[in-house]
Amino acid sequence: MVDLRDSALLRACRGEPVPHTPVWFMRQAGRSLPEYRAARAGLGMLESCLRPDVVVEVTMQPVRRYGVDAAILFSDIVLPVKAAGVDLDIEPGVGPVVANPVRSAADVAALPQLDPAAVEPVAEAVRGLVGELGATPLIGFAGAPFTLASYLVEGGPSREHVRTKALMYGDEQTWHALADRLAQIALAFLRVQVDAGVSVVQLFDSWAGTLSADDYTRYVLPHSRTVLEGIRAHADVPRIHFGVGTGELLGLMAAAGADVIGVDWRVPLDEAAKRVPAGIPVQGNLDPAAVFAPWPVVAERARDVLRRGTAATGHVFNLGHGVLPDTDPDVLARLVELVHAESVTP
Amino acid sequence: MVDLRDSALLRACRGEPVPHTPVWFMRQAGRSLPEYRAARAGLGMLESCLRPDVVVEVTMQPVRRYGVDAAILFSDIVLPVKAAGVDLDIEPGVGPVVANPVRSAADVAALPQLDPAAVEPVAEAVRGLVGELGATPLIGFAGAPFTLASYLVEGGPSREHVRTKALMYGDEQTWHALADRLAQIALAFLRVQVDAGVSVVQLFDSWAGTLSADDYTRYVLPHSRTVLEGIRAHADVPRIHFGVGTGELLGLMAAAGADVIGVDWRVPLDEAAKRVPAGIPVQGNLDPAAVFAPWPVVAERARDVLRRGTAATGHVFNLGHGVLPDTDPDVLARLVELVHAESVTP
Repeated sequence: MVDLRDSALLRACRGEPVPHTPVWFMRQAGRSLPEYRAARAGLGMLESCLRPDVVVEVTMQPVRRYGVDAAILFSDIVLPVKAAGVDLDIEPGVGPVVANPVRSAADVAALPQLDPAAVEPVAEAVRGLVGELGATPLIGFAGAPFTLASYLVEGGPSREHVRTKALMYGDEQTWHALADRLAQIALAFLRVQVDAGVSVVQLFDSWAGTLSADDYTRYVLPHSRTVLEGIRAHADVPRIHFGVGTGELLGLMAAAGADVIGVDWRVPLDEAAKRVPAGIPVQGNLDPAAVFAPWPVVAERARDVLRRGTAATGHVFNLGHGVLPDTDPDVLARLVELVHAESVTP
Repeated sequence: MVDLRDSALLRACRGEPVPHTPVWFMRQAGRSLPEYRAARAGLGMLESCLRPDVVVEVTMQPVRRYGVDAAILFSDIVLPVKAAGVDLDIEPGVGPVVANPVRSAADVAALPQLDPAAVEPVAEAVRGLVGELGATPLIGFAGAPFTLASYLVEGGPSREHVRTKALMYGDEQTWHALADRLAQIALAFLRVQVDAGVSVVQLFDSWAGTLSADDYTRYVLPHSRTVLEGIRAHADVPRIHFGVGTGELLGLMAAAGADVIGVDWRVPLDEAAKRVPAGIPVQGNLDPAAVFAPWPVVAERARDVLRRGTAATGHVFNLGHGVLPDTDPDVLARLVELVHAESVTP
């Protein structure tokens, strides 16, 4: 059996010397790939996530195409909430839509826990992937309590998170009860993935950047810590913690119990390295919109990310957010080549 | 004639002692007010902006209702672009939609300039307002070149600004030509407002926060400077500069030639005060979602904003972004009372 702990990704996550900077892309398995659209044809998003054959195929696609240094499990952050029994679905072009938004203490008390058996198809897919991936590590993931809570409280995607913040600020006890329930669901989902063989986990708090540092500290950090420390207690796998627009929060997101901090494109990695505790590697952070520029510009910007990444203890190259649907896959392929060929190893 | 230079707002903008912290709200004239919805009934947004009677009525409404320390001209950032001759409209529930997006050097070369006569109804409204407002100053405004450019290039509102960034990164010369044209339009629009009597101007770069500091410096700052320095050369009115998610950009937005920096809710004002040059007042920054919490929470948070605001040379109380449509006007009224009664004057 391959020892993935010596892979470039895991070495970088531990801040150890690497043969080259590892690279993967958030949402690398997704709509930008024609083979993805073919594999998903006729299947709903959450339905696909519970079909091990589809999950394996779609997760493998970018690994085959790009030669990235990691696969990331094809899934969705709301999947475990759905699997726990909450009535929600993902509507194409909209995102998650929740039938009965969660807004009262009674709503929170009625939230089910996640029975690991309900996500057994995910475990089966992970086991299949680990065999197929060989020397390439598989990253598992879950949505963080704040981001999950926002979907449940708003009833769907939201730009302002008004009802979520109103609950948070106005009924702190109910908020903490909700966030704790969601932390338990996220933790249970990650444990299933880890037990089935993922080598790294990433906690996505996509929308944490909408909070001030004080609010993050008071309302969110304790619950993200429940997830991250719960995984630490469960297994020895690196934990990456990522959100968008989190320039003010990078240190706090590390303090929540992360091994690696994902950074969006707004904060250069050399600056991000100063905002996290010494010894914490960073992940990122090419602007996903920059890959639409002509190649020489993309290359120049990627080199700048590599250079700045050397200021951190370790660097996992990635975009600063997910691959955009209209992205040209050939540009991502060239990016992988560039990162592998031109990594600046300190 | 009233000398508005001694008003609380203008004194705060110059960093001088104030009788109380001045307060106004971005988008105070808007959908949250029933009298606004009545005045706008049956009228398109841009049509309303060119009807002096409507502009005066709608601009006055929040002043009457709240007793805020400033009126802000009822208008829209795309109005001068439309008035210059670009085929665009504001679709309810969508935002600005541009018939022929601007994407090539030829498109940019074809962009018209703004003939001040085309916004004469705005000038007429400003003159009427100045008479009616008496001792309350009127704030004029314009959209900054980057935010305007994003509408023109994308063809409408955008979350990712992909085409805008692709143009910026991929064809720098065309980008700068476009941004300069829009700077000239914004400057011409502000000059008209200043000549008609506004006492303060605010440059809205709503989406600048989507850029890294390096990109902002290279692609955006020179053009926002054209507007802000153009106004400085034209008249002695304080210039406020605001964007959302601009924690990394506050110092640069000041360097572009602003007298006051608007801050969203993500960065506390005492921290913001450290990021702008000494002597620059700040404006903000209660989370617009926080006003949906119970009043004691709103009050506590407003007091915190006031306290932190004392760390700056001057403070204009505001929300961290525009009033949200479902906001309860009574809460804003109480906020104004609180700010006036409890201002902490240093």
